[in-house]
Amino acid sequence: MVKSLINGKPSEQVSVHDRGFLYGDGVFETMPAFLGKVMWFDKHYDRLKLGCNALKIAVPKKEVLIADIEQLLGKQQRATIKIIITRGTSARGYKVDPDASPTRVVLCSEWNDSLRMKAETGIRLKLCKTPIGRHPILGSLKHLNRLENVLARQEWQGDEYDEGLMCDEFGNIVDGIMSNIFICKDKKIKTPRIQLSGINGIMRNWVLGLDKSWNIEEINGMTIDDVVEADEVFMSNSLIGLWPVKHFNDKHFEIGPIYKKLYKKLEIEYPVLHV
Amino acid sequence: MVKSLINGKPSEQVSVHDRGFLYGDGVFETMPAFLGKVMWFDKHYDRLKLGCNALKIAVPKKEVLIADIEQLLGKQQRATIKIIITRGTSARGYKVDPDASPTRVVLCSEWNDSLRMKAETGIRLKLCKTPIGRHPILGSLKHLNRLENVLARQEWQGDEYDEGLMCDEFGNIVDGIMSNIFICKDKKIKTPRIQLSGINGIMRNWVLGLDKSWNIEEINGMTIDDVVEADEVFMSNSLIGLWPVKHFNDKHFEIGPIYKKLYKKLEIEYPVLHV
Repeated sequence: MVKSLINGKPSEQVSVHDRGFLYGDGVFETMPAFLGKVMWFDKHYDRLKLGCNALKIAVPKKEVLIADIEQLLGKQQRATIKIIITRGTSARGYKVDPDASPTRVVLCSEWNDSLRMKAETGIRLKLCKTPIGRHPILGSLKHLNRLENVLARQEWQGDEYDEGLMCDEFGNIVDGIMSNIFICKDKKIKTPRIQLSGINGIMRNWVLGLDKSWNIEEINGMTIDDVVEADEVFMSNSLIGLWPVKHFNDKHFEIGPIYKKLYKKLEIEYPVLHV
Repeated sequence: MVKSLINGKPSEQVSVHDRGFLYGDGVFETMPAFLGKVMWFDKHYDRLKLGCNALKIAVPKKEVLIADIEQLLGKQQRATIKIIITRGTSARGYKVDPDASPTRVVLCSEWNDSLRMKAETGIRLKLCKTPIGRHPILGSLKHLNRLENVLARQEWQGDEYDEGLMCDEFGNIVDGIMSNIFICKDKKIKTPRIQLSGINGIMRNWVLGLDKSWNIEEINGMTIDDVVEADEVFMSNSLIGLWPVKHFNDKHFEIGPIYKKLYKKLEIEYPVLHV
């Protein structure tokens, strides 16, 4: 069951005139909550604010969102929280009413334990045919225009894959449908720079923030061959944490020492992950 | 006032779990209705079907949509009809439930006469800074991911412009925020080919379907200079009909003979436009 608050009131309905529905005119965040608190809430809030600012939507105050979340969580030990902020309702047409009042949606759904389990078993990664577009403004925002992800996720139906990998029209690897990618080669860790496409993941930023001894860099122009020839490949996302890739494009990978060390570091820093 | 039917029932609310709201996972059409009938309904329906097929959303039967429209129109002489078809509600995540039942929204709003008036007075066209993305699947569909149009429309607030012109990241002119563009030079009419970006307009197709004596062609790589140096420039869209451009990028245009002839042709073929 999913519990929801719309502008702070229990409701599951939004106006058909909401620009979130009409144009995808808004942003969102999806986050794990443990023991009544959202993990890395401040980082998610900062990204939400960045998106709202780019779209010129007034961002709700942090305290207001926290109050909504706490009300929904109650005594739940683990949950998935989703925040959606849209520009609100307006008259017909793309023109923005500067007085439009944003719509604030907070959803609380059950925690899906099977996602985290794959951190230990590893995943099968599919190379998606659906390309990801490039855009200097929208490129790295977590906005509500997500048809590319929907189309990519439609490329398989069953359990044969756990995640899909997406490239831009020039064949540069961008990210997974719902995660970021890291490859390890000769003890170096690399991840595509997120600029014109893709999501600037919170978990990705945790990895990028590790000290220099980890040898991590953002690169332009990661290719499919770079992934296939890597020693290790792993994916990251706030909900899943870290996922080691065991299979991609006919190549089998072992869960390697860098991933194991990184996963241990995450567990030590965030013991709450194991509640 | 806007009247609305959701899945055939009077309502103004959609589920917060509707994928139209969550991901912009759907398509739409906006059409003028005169004397109880939507103009070019079959063409709008064909495009709706094309979009639904591309996204693998079951398209509602034509009769069902017509019944909705007739119910909303009643005895109204003139109105604007909007149809939105989304994939319907689903569990969290991009994965599509093959059994999801689409959401069918039909909106009926008042006719805005001021739009058509500009067919005679001409418009001021702004060159937008917001680029339009390129995508081989989504490129030409009238889907609900419209943030590019929203951002472009935010580039001005008052009445200083009537429409904005958008280019892709390589500077190729694609279309207007809500219309298609035609330029005339040396008695030839040209419009950008709609393939990786933009909307394949119904009104645009009416123009392209005219006989060879009109000398019309679709071209790749239309530039800003091509527009500035044109003898005449006009825009098209189902709701506005045809709009002659009187001002673009510091250049003043007269309403020229080709536009006048074309507009007369439209009036003769569709006298209903003047009800």
